[in-house]
Amino acid sequence: MIALDIINKKKNKIELSNEEINFFVNGFTKKEIPDYQMSSLLMAILLNGMSELEISNLTEIMMHSGDVVDLSSIKGIKLDKHSTGGVGDKTSLVLGPIVASCGGIVSKMSGRGLGHTGGTIDKLESIPNFNCFLSIDEFKNVINKIGISIIGQTDSLVPADKAIYSLRDATGTVDSLPLIASSIMSKKLATGSDAILLDIKCGNGAFMKDLESAQKLGNIMIKIGRSLKKDIRVEITNMNQPLGIMIGNKNEIIEVIRTLSNKGESNFVKLCLSSASTMLVQAGIAKNELEGEKIAKESLLSGKALAKFYEFIEAQGGDVEAIKDPLFWNPSNKIEVLATENGFLEIYDSLVFGNVALKLGAGRKTKTDKIDFEAGIELNKITNDHVKIGDILFTLYSTKVIDLSLIKELNLGYKINNKVISNKIILDKIK
Amino acid sequence: MIALDIINKKKNKIELSNEEINFFVNGFTKKEIPDYQMSSLLMAILLNGMSELEISNLTEIMMHSGDVVDLSSIKGIKLDKHSTGGVGDKTSLVLGPIVASCGGIVSKMSGRGLGHTGGTIDKLESIPNFNCFLSIDEFKNVINKIGISIIGQTDSLVPADKAIYSLRDATGTVDSLPLIASSIMSKKLATGSDAILLDIKCGNGAFMKDLESAQKLGNIMIKIGRSLKKDIRVEITNMNQPLGIMIGNKNEIIEVIRTLSNKGESNFVKLCLSSASTMLVQAGIAKNELEGEKIAKESLLSGKALAKFYEFIEAQGGDVEAIKDPLFWNPSNKIEVLATENGFLEIYDSLVFGNVALKLGAGRKTKTDKIDFEAGIELNKITNDHVKIGDILFTLYSTKVIDLSLIKELNLGYKINNKVISNKIILDKIK
Repeated sequence: MIALDIINKKKNKIELSNEEINFFVNGFTKKEIPDYQMSSLLMAILLNGMSELEISNLTEIMMHSGDVVDLSSIKGIKLDKHSTGGVGDKTSLVLGPIVASCGGIVSKMSGRGLGHTGGTIDKLESIPNFNCFLSIDEFKNVINKIGISIIGQTDSLVPADKAIYSLRDATGTVDSLPLIASSIMSKKLATGSDAILLDIKCGNGAFMKDLESAQKLGNIMIKIGRSLKKDIRVEITNMNQPLGIMIGNKNEIIEVIRTLSNKGESNFVKLCLSSASTMLVQAGIAKNELEGEKIAKESLLSGKALAKFYEFIEAQGGDVEAIKDPLFWNPSNKIEVLATENGFLEIYDSLVFGNVALKLGAGRKTKTDKIDFEAGIELNKITNDHVKIGDILFTLYSTKVIDLSLIKELNLGYKINNKVISNKIILDKIK
Repeated sequence: MIALDIINKKKNKIELSNEEINFFVNGFTKKEIPDYQMSSLLMAILLNGMSELEISNLTEIMMHSGDVVDLSSIKGIKLDKHSTGGVGDKTSLVLGPIVASCGGIVSKMSGRGLGHTGGTIDKLESIPNFNCFLSIDEFKNVINKIGISIIGQTDSLVPADKAIYSLRDATGTVDSLPLIASSIMSKKLATGSDAILLDIKCGNGAFMKDLESAQKLGNIMIKIGRSLKKDIRVEITNMNQPLGIMIGNKNEIIEVIRTLSNKGESNFVKLCLSSASTMLVQAGIAKNELEGEKIAKESLLSGKALAKFYEFIEAQGGDVEAIKDPLFWNPSNKIEVLATENGFLEIYDSLVFGNVALKLGAGRKTKTDKIDFEAGIELNKITNDHVKIGDILFTLYSTKVIDLSLIKELNLGYKINNKVISNKIILDKIK
């Protein structure tokens, strides 16, 4: 087999066989096929697309390029959830405990944040002594004991995706649905779960800018799952505005606790309950989403979900007393952003908020940056709140002195209208 | 400027500015932009195309990536001719002397052959002592003295094309009209001529497989020329069969002499006279093609053209007596291919003939291969000749012992019909 022939086939819109994709992906991962041939193929894939069969073959080949976690020693349906990356996205940390407290088995492997999107692992690492890097055996033990564990992905999973992704980043080949779908799915499938809920973020500050692309991506991922006998469900959710009222790390942990104490922001609670209901259906615990939502809500109201959260933090070594302490989140600097008009607030670009949070220190620009766990943004007002001149709209926090120009930057992400706007959090659900 | 942004623009079908193309091409040539980004851009160009403006900008940028020959010290219109590469293509060696003997100024820089297509420089190097690598000053002196010089391209011309071409070869991005056109034209324009005749070979064994693509390429090249104030004319010629009756090097020199002695194969003579007439029009020597053809024919019949050929060989150090010697071409091995049917011969795949000649030693598979100047093929019969069982169709020659399997291979390039076929050599002329 010759790499050039495979590039020419894809260039001429001829479907690639499983053997050809395997030859190319593994050859590239082993550095036998050079970067410049892979980037040429990637651009041809981006512009000419891939068939469903090619996409599921690619996914399976990437999945098997490294270790595949075997969770078969855990009884029952192993549930995982993945978000394509949002701003203020702490959903997994609310949802996981809810589902586990209702009897679901949550086995989640998660990544770190990069750029304007935060990562679940980073938020968990803001908790003193919390261990995100359990061994696979410890991971299974925690799940068997308390029904939930969340750990960071090890480097031995899907090396092909790592190699291809860094090349895509440099060659303009990120925004290809087949490549996005196979990248996400290969990583998820390598972690050994049976059923996966995919939250595709849609809007500004998200991978998918419009509903139609998000639906296309969702359908591709469901088909990949079907071909590999995994139960994939998709929700498409609004990412024009950040999730909840906190963006950062420690402050998001505080928001998780508040939400699990039934004091959460209503749109965010709606999303958590909806996602939980889907996962309870996937687990076979609820017959349908309506029943799932009822069960999830009971767990939230009864305090069972919060108790499960604390149990989970403790099981992975985290200091539960520390996060209950009012001084857990204690940033040394803050500045407030005030309203200069009367009217109804509309946050319409979460990317702006994500980038300001990044600059405050809450995220990392490059993989080796260190995060300031105190840094972040609090939304004192959210979309459709009525505001008056002088009201505090947002508060920026950081350990370092805050650059006032960030206020100006934040201005590009919101406006004040003379009426409320339609503001749906869940745009679609596909299965 | 950022390379990635430029890739993304082309990917999204947005026209690139002159500055952007310049940044990318020169950045790549200086090795500041890596291979993998260039190959991604090349594939995007191949699949999304380029506007006329982009193509002429690209051509000019490539042309100026190295030395540009200044022929302004030579008075009059400097003529060049370029063929996209054929099998048995010795046209320039007949045409150049005809045009020069009629008062045209022929300043040609030529490349070596690679793969199944031969190169004018290789054919000339089969002549003892002939010097293909004159300095630019010597080149100009010979032109000023006798009206014609043909030399090899120096490495200092168009380094961008060299760098890009070797990447295109490895990344499936050869067959892009904008890239082919800019590659050919940048090299031709860098050699400093005023008027260029482009012979686009069409058919099996040629770059362009069909007339429509060849016409498209021709029109692009004429437009590039116009934007750079050069007079470009295009002829599209049949390459389903080799040109003339000899494929090789020394044997093609012999065919050149025969043709200039008015004993050439008729279709090949037709092509030489047609091309010469166009160049005489470009030179302002003939008012129109009809007159040009008349002047060219007179030169051929009178022996003036042959005398000019010998003068040219001598001016570049070649041994004229040696090529007049009947033992100049003296291969030690030959085998004959006989007809096994009665009927009319049709050679329909010159690629097969080119590859067999290559395997006999007449060409080079890789740039560093050494050519056997004795090796080649003689067509004892040509298309539409009536043949009887046992007639000699072709003779294969080589210095080494000839592998009999080459006869079988050659069988794939011809057949014997029960009637003659239409057999035009010149398919179109564009200006």
